[in-house]
Amino acid sequence: MDFRTDLALERHEVIKADSPEGVVSETFEKNGITFTKIKVTNESGAESLGKPVGTYITAEIPSLVTRSPVDEEIIEAIGEELRSLLPKEGTVLAVGLGNTDITPDAVGPESISMVLATRHISAELSESVGLGDLRPVAGFTPGVLGKTGVETAESVKGLAETVKPCAVIVVDALAARRLKRLGNTVQMSDTGITPGSGVGNARAAINKESIGVPVISMGIPTVVDAQTLVNDLTDDTKEISREENKRMIITPREIDLVVERASRIIGLSINKALQPHLSVDEVMMLVGN
Amino acid sequence: MDFRTDLALERHEVIKADSPEGVVSETFEKNGITFTKIKVTNESGAESLGKPVGTYITAEIPSLVTRSPVDEEIIEAIGEELRSLLPKEGTVLAVGLGNTDITPDAVGPESISMVLATRHISAELSESVGLGDLRPVAGFTPGVLGKTGVETAESVKGLAETVKPCAVIVVDALAARRLKRLGNTVQMSDTGITPGSGVGNARAAINKESIGVPVISMGIPTVVDAQTLVNDLTDDTKEISREENKRMIITPREIDLVVERASRIIGLSINKALQPHLSVDEVMMLVGN
Amino acid sequence: MDFRTDLALERHEVIKADSPEGVVSETFEKNGITFTKIKVTNESGAESLGKPVGTYITAEIPSLVTRSPVDEEIIEAIGEELRSLLPKEGTVLAVGLGNTDITPDAVGPESISMVLATRHISAELSESVGLGDLRPVAGFTPGVLGKTGVETAESVKGLAETVKPCAVIVVDALAARRLKRLGNTVQMSDTGITPGSGVGNARAAINKESIGVPVISMGIPTVVDAQTLVNDLTDDTKEISREENKRMIITPREIDLVVERASRIIGLSINKALQPHLSVDEVMMLVGN
Amino acid sequence: MDFRTDLALERHEVIKADSPEGVVSETFEKNGITFTKIKVTNESGAESLGKPVGTYITAEIPSLVTRSPVDEEIIEAIGEELRSLLPKEGTVLAVGLGNTDITPDAVGPESISMVLATRHISAELSESVGLGDLRPVAGFTPGVLGKTGVETAESVKGLAETVKPCAVIVVDALAARRLKRLGNTVQMSDTGITPGSGVGNARAAINKESIGVPVISMGIPTVVDAQTLVNDLTDDTKEISREENKRMIITPREIDLVVERASRIIGLSINKALQPHLSVDEVMMLVGN
Repeated sequence: MDFRTDLALERHEVIKADSPEGVVSETFEKNGITFTKIKVTNESGAESLGKPVGTYITAEIPSLVTRSPVDEEIIEAIGEELRSLLPKEGTVLAVGLGNTDITPDAVGPESISMVLATRHISAELSESVGLGDLRPVAGFTPGVLGKTGVETAESVKGLAETVKPCAVIVVDALAARRLKRLGNTVQMSDTGITPGSGVGNARAAINKESIGVPVISMGIPTVVDAQTLVNDLTDDTKEISREENKRMIITPREIDLVVERASRIIGLSINKALQPHLSVDEVMMLVGN
Repeated sequence: MDFRTDLALERHEVIKADSPEGVVSETFEKNGITFTKIKVTNESGAESLGKPVGTYITAEIPSLVTRSPVDEEIIEAIGEELRSLLPKEGTVLAVGLGNTDITPDAVGPESISMVLATRHISAELSESVGLGDLRPVAGFTPGVLGKTGVETAESVKGLAETVKPCAVIVVDALAARRLKRLGNTVQMSDTGITPGSGVGNARAAINKESIGVPVISMGIPTVVDAQTLVNDLTDDTKEISREENKRMIITPREIDLVVERASRIIGLSINKALQPHLSVDEVMMLVGN
Repeated sequence: MDFRTDLALERHEVIKADSPEGVVSETFEKNGITFTKIKVTNESGAESLGKPVGTYITAEIPSLVTRSPVDEEIIEAIGEELRSLLPKEGTVLAVGLGNTDITPDAVGPESISMVLATRHISAELSESVGLGDLRPVAGFTPGVLGKTGVETAESVKGLAETVKPCAVIVVDALAARRLKRLGNTVQMSDTGITPGSGVGNARAAINKESIGVPVISMGIPTVVDAQTLVNDLTDDTKEISREENKRMIITPREIDLVVERASRIIGLSINKALQPHLSVDEVMMLVGN
Repeated sequence: MDFRTDLALERHEVIKADSPEGVVSETFEKNGITFTKIKVTNESGAESLGKPVGTYITAEIPSLVTRSPVDEEIIEAIGEELRSLLPKEGTVLAVGLGNTDITPDAVGPESISMVLATRHISAELSESVGLGDLRPVAGFTPGVLGKTGVETAESVKGLAETVKPCAVIVVDALAARRLKRLGNTVQMSDTGITPGSGVGNARAAINKESIGVPVISMGIPTVVDAQTLVNDLTDDTKEISREENKRMIITPREIDLVVERASRIIGLSINKALQPHLSVDEVMMLVGN
């Protein structure tokens, strides 16, 4: 498997015919959306799939490249699956990875801007304004190493020591193997994330080991490695000619729209997972959109 | 030639071995930049090249994907070639085509925001503030049909009837055949432009016939048709499998940077062509950057 | 009346005790909103009010500085009043004046980005996608003289000659006399507009005389002249001390939010006036928000 | 002193005639800029001035409201003064306070985007690319409580425990008493900052006590409290009439330009203070502007 992808689903497609030991998958529908849950149960499975032991849930949503409405039913279905990966109660720290200056890399920060921060709202205030019982949530957009001088894993750990969450959700833009996956796949996992791994620029992992609490990752693919694209489509491993072969990373022409809508879906799904009693409209008004 | 490209240079690469009648090309260096000038001298040449009769000048500049500085020598060389396509004097209307909501399509409007509008500045005022003898220039960003309800060719013609320029310069983002051309090729031509032709969405042509005065086009490629990419790289015409085959248009991950720098180069080159006595620094201050 | 304001309402407040000849006003409620309609019926009234002969309708809406939701009832009430100023049928050209680089001046262009352009949509297409009978609408954002070299009145006239509308709607940010008017007053008028008049930088008028068809203006105040503010609040005409007295123009700290919401209200009210059969939600989806 | 201001200079103007004990000031010129250094040497002085014990340096720069060029000499002069407040060596953490969604409040984050982060660059790499001996710098933009759920003082402390700087620089937009101060005063202080104090929304202080290392604050005023403005200009304490009296905070119409240029000056001055061997042009290229 010499192609680059962050999607467990794409890795599984390649190996599933072999029914490798330690990898179990199931597919199900919820609110019209197809979900695939892949469980990697041991190290043998991890090696076969090329992903750490844990659970990977993929939702195949209508393409974000076209301007279809964001459906409350989709938000609800994804939010429920996300909730299944999270501790039942306690403060959650939601972290948006990536660089807002690079549109296809802005999914993380943009998603967090849609997440309702509640950690500073007292129960009394919340009740008095009719928001009911709010789960404490903090949001964080650490920026990227080249602009901060601080590894994201370091700064997330620093803030986690301050906020003391029961779990961290990290949102990031992902790399896919296939163009058709761009903007229509949501992946959630309880294995954390290694930022940049899908585009050949892996940073320190953000996971339970490095942060100290469970780290749930969530993302939508926005880029494809050009060499991977060609390998894949040509069914062979012919290298792109030398001058092309700069491992250019590509994204759809409509990336602005994809990122805006991806961030809305992820942000609203996180809210639905954490504050299930609030409607999408209530949340949208509260986050100012 | 079943591939999509707006670049005469890429079309010429395919046919030049045949030395078709009516197509003449020459290559030269200026200020360290390689220029190729392709002249289509008759209809037979136009048919061979798949482009109208006229002159196409291509400059191969250092890649805009990497963060190399914009060199005044590059601006000067491109500005001089652009000037060779323009009438010696008279008002020029500079038009930026495209949609600012779609980053790879924003080269036109962003370039025009770097062009110094001077048509409203009297000779007295100009002299009194030390700007010397300014050529009259008007700028226009018409927007796109879906958002204005007006064909770009219509609104450019309407404004040209008001401004009565001796020539129009239209700037647009272009489509290339090959990834490696993205962000490192500047094309200028005296044949006008058919917006959208490189991405399979051709609008009414903007040229001397439709507008009534010479129309010089200028652009930098920012997108590649995915099917063209695969055809090209695989040296055959194998179709992308049906589900992929939505003619997805792709762009580099670093498109924000490419568009910012492409617009700077085009805008400053237009200023250099029209106000050769002003330095890049003077122009940058005047346009507020 | 030495203070600066674009609001007929504020001028009327000063003179109404005198019941000047040629100025008639009425106040009414619609959907919870207070409307004031001031009619200037002759030149004597025009001189008294300091505004041309015509009708001025003002809606006092909940403050846009606070984050209250945009209510469909407000849109409907304002849309109906706007419709009363427009010809019953025929193409409408909606024009957004102002400079998007200056937030308080961006109301015009931002409003037009919310207006559904329909002039290019055939009746067949419209029916087939369930949009019903659409009134033809074109949108235009001409930019500002300093950046285009073309007076706005010139370019609007040029486009009007191409589009041949039955009426033009021009949207602009307005100047108020009093801080409390900022962001909570919508003014509509059938007298056109003189851009910049409220901030001491008057450009050529855009009205029936200059354009050739009725020009309906619409705007929300976003700025106050500092000298006017002080004069007004101190009940005397004491000049601000010399070094202050640069006629600084001021705007609320929350201007980004005010402009976003003002543009939404104006844009949606225009849609409601022109396509009354479409709901706010339908329009929002169609314009991509 | 019932007016709101973050500027020690404005407070000093009111009390200096009394020559209060514990407040010493001196004025000097450097590179054409007037600097005022106010030292509060004891608690009595702190009470007189209404500001904590420490040093306050103010630079009066040409107005940012007009489009004058940013002069390298200004950067150098301010950078030198800033350096005088900082430890001679060791890692510096630069923090940008404020909300990027509110233009007048975006000075902090925008300034930090101009600061060269170097903490992650090894000495070998730095030497090999010709950047010489770089002082380690980290950058951080914590966001605002309402969007993160975390007090800024908490998150700065959390990151400081990770980065272990010898000092923190916090940049924030300031409130002035007088309109004429907006956009032409740079204040630096070694007393840290209480975010929001100038607009009546004070948050937890960020200073040596709360963070554990020296905290140098830096800012440019962008807002004035409307009541303060009126009190000040009318030379009495007459209250604005009840309906006006919402303590509206105001900012200049040209706030976008002011913030862009203020951020450039602050960011470049920080770079000059920390990396005095790099020119403004080198830094601009390195931070991508």
